[in-house]
Amino acid sequence: MSQQRTGSPGNTPGTPDFPDIPEATVARLPEYLRALHSLAEAGHDTASSESLAVAAGVNSAKLRKDLSHLGSNGTRGVGYNVERLIGQIEHVLGLTTLRAVALVGVGNLGHALAGYSGFTTRGFHIAALFDADPTRVGERINNLVVRHIDELAAVVDTCRIAIGVIATPAHAAQGVADVLVNSGVTSILNFAPCVLSVPDGVDVRKVDLAVELQILSFHEHRKAALTGTVTL
Amino acid sequence: MSQQRTGSPGNTPGTPDFPDIPEATVARLPEYLRALHSLAEAGHDTASSESLAVAAGVNSAKLRKDLSHLGSNGTRGVGYNVERLIGQIEHVLGLTTLRAVALVGVGNLGHALAGYSGFTTRGFHIAALFDADPTRVGERINNLVVRHIDELAAVVDTCRIAIGVIATPAHAAQGVADVLVNSGVTSILNFAPCVLSVPDGVDVRKVDLAVELQILSFHEHRKAALTGTVTL
Repeated sequence: MSQQRTGSPGNTPGTPDFPDIPEATVARLPEYLRALHSLAEAGHDTASSESLAVAAGVNSAKLRKDLSHLGSNGTRGVGYNVERLIGQIEHVLGLTTLRAVALVGVGNLGHALAGYSGFTTRGFHIAALFDADPTRVGERINNLVVRHIDELAAVVDTCRIAIGVIATPAHAAQGVADVLVNSGVTSILNFAPCVLSVPDGVDVRKVDLAVELQILSFHEHRKAALTGTVTL
Repeated sequence: MSQQRTGSPGNTPGTPDFPDIPEATVARLPEYLRALHSLAEAGHDTASSESLAVAAGVNSAKLRKDLSHLGSNGTRGVGYNVERLIGQIEHVLGLTTLRAVALVGVGNLGHALAGYSGFTTRGFHIAALFDADPTRVGERINNLVVRHIDELAAVVDTCRIAIGVIATPAHAAQGVADVLVNSGVTSILNFAPCVLSVPDGVDVRKVDLAVELQILSFHEHRKAALTGTVTL
């Protein structure tokens, strides 16, 4: 879920050097990439748009349109070259270099994120952990020592942090975002249940786990209303 | 991010008993609700569409249109009644009753989810925990004992589980989804990095943490391309 998008490709003209890709397409590219890696592991050299669409959970017309933004149209009767398409998507997503991530807040959720192996295998490495709680500072998680938040600015610089992940309580999140932004970080993934205020040019994505459950709750409620099992 | 949406209000006609609300609006209602609760805690009885929009991180025209789907138009010069609007959104989202959640997979992420206080305060309670690993079964997390996955079907029935949360590795997720669906669960929140196949009438929301980072990576890459700090 995107909280704020500044300078998004949907709103600004593309450059000659960079494809102009709609935001919704960008959001689906990681799914295609995951599906392509699965197909490659299963020994497939090529994939039809239909099989790739099923693996990615979208319809094949949408997939073909999305991939056409990358200049990738497949070959009639053959489909897409799996390795070539992986390369194209990884290039556009900027995954050809490992990006360093700083994680702020090592409570329950932060602990889980710090130990999440899915990051490493998909283009990222957690380079530094921070917390404001002195009793947390010095704790070792996955071979990283938790540092005090006061060290954040210096570490962003020396570790060339590309993305900041905020897993603090809501009341602390804006302060952390300010420090990240002032240190030069321009991409933030926010797990705190609040809206961050950031300057133009900083991208924020927000993941709120309770929001996802509330959206499902709507559908549960609606299905119950349709079948008459609840009174409205 | 919605993986699959069957019987969604955007695609099917509404019923006389239930408002016909676009999917994108449904996804924003939890944000409005969170913002309204913050305003209520700060002592506000009314809120202008502008102040509510800022607190929810959307523009005010979109907010007014979204809320008009609930039949809530505010009062010119006064704004929205905060308590009344909270009631309306909670009603539509089906949050007036606490919904029971079963969490399957108590690895790193599952542990964090089981201990996440944000669920309880926002309409849900984790009623049961499951894992397939015999060394995990019997472990106590937040006053719940982890049960073996073989007990899932029976517990869904007795605990009236409304929503299943899957936090297993990707290879185990489809099997868990099948058990949940066969036990009568019609809403699933999937944290495993894979696409689930479910029958019509079952809603799946997917949260893939690495996908969020990959989308941010795209924007980092694009910003670097625009400023000429990388060669494409």
